Amino acid sequence: MANKVSTKPPSGMRDFLPSDLARRRYVVEQVRSVYERYGFVPLETPSLENLEILLGKYGEDEKLIYRILHRGEELQRALANPPADGLDADALSDQALRYDLTVPLARVVAQYGELPKYFKRYQIQPVWRADRPGKGRFREFYQCDVDVTGTTSLIAEAEVCGAACEVLDRLGFDDYVLAINHRQLLRALIRTAGIDPSKEGTALVAVDKLDKLGRDGVRDELTSRDIAADSATRLLELIDRDARGDNRALLAGLRRDLEDHEGLAALDQLTALDELLQASPAGRRACVRPQLARGLSYYTGPIFEVTVRDLASSIAGGGRYDGLVGMFGKQQVPAVGLSLGLERILVVMAERGMYPTLPSGPDVLVCWTGVEPGRVLTVAHRLRAQNLRVEVYPEPHKLARQLQYADSEGVRAPWVAIVGDTELEGDAITVKHLQSGEQSTVRVDEAQRTIASRR
Amino acid sequence: MANKVSTKPPSGMRDFLPSDLARRRYVVEQVRSVYERYGFVPLETPSLENLEILLGKYGEDEKLIYRILHRGEELQRALANPPADGLDADALSDQALRYDLTVPLARVVAQYGELPKYFKRYQIQPVWRADRPGKGRFREFYQCDVDVTGTTSLIAEAEVCGAACEVLDRLGFDDYVLAINHRQLLRALIRTAGIDPSKEGTALVAVDKLDKLGRDGVRDELTSRDIAADSATRLLELIDRDARGDNRALLAGLRRDLEDHEGLAALDQLTALDELLQASPAGRRACVRPQLARGLSYYTGPIFEVTVRDLASSIAGGGRYDGLVGMFGKQQVPAVGLSLGLERILVVMAERGMYPTLPSGPDVLVCWTGVEPGRVLTVAHRLRAQNLRVEVYPEPHKLARQLQYADSEGVRAPWVAIVGDTELEGDAITVKHLQSGEQSTVRVDEAQRTIASRR
Repeated sequence: MANKVSTKPPSGMRDFLPSDLARRRYVVEQVRSVYERYGFVPLETPSLENLEILLGKYGEDEKLIYRILHRGEELQRALANPPADGLDADALSDQALRYDLTVPLARVVAQYGELPKYFKRYQIQPVWRADRPGKGRFREFYQCDVDVTGTTSLIAEAEVCGAACEVLDRLGFDDYVLAINHRQLLRALIRTAGIDPSKEGTALVAVDKLDKLGRDGVRDELTSRDIAADSATRLLELIDRDARGDNRALLAGLRRDLEDHEGLAALDQLTALDELLQASPAGRRACVRPQLARGLSYYTGPIFEVTVRDLASSIAGGGRYDGLVGMFGKQQVPAVGLSLGLERILVVMAERGMYPTLPSGPDVLVCWTGVEPGRVLTVAHRLRAQNLRVEVYPEPHKLARQLQYADSEGVRAPWVAIVGDTELEGDAITVKHLQSGEQSTVRVDEAQRTIASRR
Repeated sequence: MANKVSTKPPSGMRDFLPSDLARRRYVVEQVRSVYERYGFVPLETPSLENLEILLGKYGEDEKLIYRILHRGEELQRALANPPADGLDADALSDQALRYDLTVPLARVVAQYGELPKYFKRYQIQPVWRADRPGKGRFREFYQCDVDVTGTTSLIAEAEVCGAACEVLDRLGFDDYVLAINHRQLLRALIRTAGIDPSKEGTALVAVDKLDKLGRDGVRDELTSRDIAADSATRLLELIDRDARGDNRALLAGLRRDLEDHEGLAALDQLTALDELLQASPAGRRACVRPQLARGLSYYTGPIFEVTVRDLASSIAGGGRYDGLVGMFGKQQVPAVGLSLGLERILVVMAERGMYPTLPSGPDVLVCWTGVEPGRVLTVAHRLRAQNLRVEVYPEPHKLARQLQYADSEGVRAPWVAIVGDTELEGDAITVKHLQSGEQSTVRVDEAQRTIASRR
C-alpha cells in the first residue's frame, strides 16, 4: 500500500453524498420550475473562461479568481522567458475558473447573433472563488441566476424579482425582505450631501453597512475616511428615513429632498418599479432602502437584495448592468439580473427544518436464498420494468444478514423482496415492509402495487 | 468601448444554448432514471481535487490534467524559492481539475465510513482533459458513471452492464455491441504465447487495435516492438478466433488452448459473467472479445466496452479495479464500474436523428396593447399559476411587432396571449396559436385548457 494521503476534498469544497443531493436537487428543481414558468430558458457555459473575459470585472475580488496553470510547451516557454519584471500569475496562465454567471452571460450575448433580442436566460451552475472558507461560504458553490438582456423596460426588473420571490415562497420562506434601490439615486444622494465625487465609492461602501453599524457607526466610518462631518450627517439624514415600511411615503420624502436631475430620474424609475412589483409575488416583500449599495461595480440602475432574519449575508442579489456586454467591445446591450445563492438557501432551510421528507435510495432490496444469481437478476429486471428502483444484494450470504443490511444506515430500503426457490415456482416473491414488518407473497409482475403503496 | 476581445469559449469547450440543453437534458434524464431503477444513488464531488489524489492514476495521460495555479502568498513563495532543478508545474500547483469520476469515487469510498458496504453510486458530472480538440472530443465533457464498491460478486458487473445497455436501449440505439473481456485472461494469453512479461503492456496496446489494423497490422506492430514473430503469430491465433458471435464456442476454444492457472480462473469468471448477463438487457449485446484491453492501468478483472457501427471510439467503457481504493493507503475495497460518454452519445443521436421533438422555451408570449404594464404582469402571474411557462413582451411596441417577435428565430412561442383593455373588462384575453393562426377569447383563469391542448 502507498503512503496514506488525505482523502478529504480540497479546502472549502464538498463531496455531496446521496442524502445531501436529495436536498440539493429538491431545491434546484423548485428553482428551475419557477424560472421556466417565468419564461426563462436555460444556458450553460464552460467552467473555464479566457482570463481576458474575467479581468477588470470584479474589482478587488479579482484576486480570488482560480487560474489554470499553463501546460507543456506553453509552460516551458513561460518559465524560460520570464517577463522583465519577473514571473507572475499573468505569465503563467491565460484561463481561469468561472467566478460568477453574469460575466459569462455577457460574453454569450456578445458572441451569438442568433439569440432572441430579449434573452431571458436562467443558469444554475457552480462558480469558484478562493475566498476564506466559513459557515455557508464555500470555494465551489452554486448560483441560480435569471437575467433579461436587450431591454431597459422595468418589466424585466419586475420579472427577475418576481421569479426569485416566487421561488422563496414555494420553498416555504415567509420572512424575507426584498430590498430595492437605484445606483443613480444613491449616487445623487451622495452628491446632494456635498461629498466629493472621488469619495463616492467610499461612501457607497459605508452606507451599505447602516443595518450592521447603525447611524453612529456609519458616521464614524465616513468621517474616518476624510468625509466632512456635516456631509456625513447630511447623507445619513437623506438616507436613513423612518417610513415604517411605507415605500410610497419614503419615496415621497426623498423627492422633497432631491433637486439633482439624475437623482430624480432614478427616483421616478424606482417609484415605477415599486408599483410594478405590486403586480407580482415580489410586491409584498419589496422594501425601498436608500442605503443599499451592492458591491459589484458594474451595476448602473435598480439594485436588489434579499435577506432573511437569521442570516447576516444576503440570500439573493442583483441589479441592472447596462454597460457590461459593451465591455467586450461590441454593441451595448442593456441587461438586468438576479442571483439566488443556493448554498445559503440550503443552510437556512436545514437550520429551520424546512425540507419535506425526501426519499433517496432504492424502493426495494432484492434478497435471495437457494436460487441461482441469474434468476435473481431476472426478477430484479421484471421489478424495474414496473418502474421500481431496485437494488440486488450481491453476495450469497444468509438471509438474516441480507435483511439486516437492508435496514442498515445509508441503505434504509423501505422494502425487501425475497427470492426463493419455492416462491419462484409460483412466479412469486415475498415482499416485506421493513418498518412495519408486514409481509406478503405476491406475483413478480404485480409487486409494484404492493410496494408503491407506501415507503 | 474597450478593445475587442474574443467572446468565444475557450478552445475545446462549449456554450450550451437553450436548444442544446433541451437535448442534453433529455439524455441525462433518461440515464438518471435508468441508473436509479438499478438501485444506484447519486454522488457529486468537487471539480477540484488535491493533486496527490490524481497523480499516478492515469499513466501517460497525466500530462492532460488541468492544474490550478497557486495564488497570493503561496505563489510568491513558490516563485521566490524555486526547487534546485528549477521551477516546474509541481512547484506551482497542488490542485487540479477532476480528470475522471472513478478516482474521486475511490477517494470518497476511502474517506467516508458511513457509506453502505455495497455502495452503488452514479455520478453525472463534467471532467476536464487538455486533449487535442476534435470531432466529439472536448476538453470539458460529461461522463455518466455507475460503480459498485465493496463486492467481488459478478452481480456487480452484470448490474453496471445491464444499466448501461438499458440506457442505450431506451435512447433508441439498436446496433451497439458490448465487448467483454478479462484483464487476467488477456495477460495469460500473452504469457501463453511466450511473450516476455516486460512486453506485456506493449502487447496489450497492440492487440487492442485488431479491429482497426487487422491481423497483419497487429503482427507488424508486435514484431516492430521486439516481440518474436512466432510469439506474435501464436498470440494472434490465441486471440483472433472466428466464433461467429457464439460466446460459448469462443470461451470453450480458449479453454482448450489455455493451461495457465490464472488464465483459467479468469476464463471461469468471464464464462460466469456471460451467463449472468443473459438475465439482463446486456445479454443480447454481450460479445466476448479476447483482444479487448482498455487503456487504464488500474483494471484488474473483467473489462467492458460499448461501440456503435458509425463511431470509431467507444461510447462506454469500464471494468473491475480492485486495487484503486487501496492506493489511498487505507483498506482495500473491490470495485467495478462503467462510464457512459455523454458527448459521444449526443453526437451519434444527432447524426442519426434519434431525438424526439423536445419543446424548449415558453408556452406563451404575453403581448399587450393599451393597458398598463402592471395589469399585464397580473395576467402573466395568473397564467403561471396554471402551470404555464409565460414570457411577457417587455416593450410597449405595436402589436404587430410583438406578434412578429413571438414567431422569430430563437423564440418560437407556440402561443401568444393578447392583453387589451376591452378583453380585460371581461377578465379575458385573446389567445392565438401561431402555427395554425386560430384564435379565441378565453377567461384568464381558463387559458390553460386551450393553450395546453397543443404546442
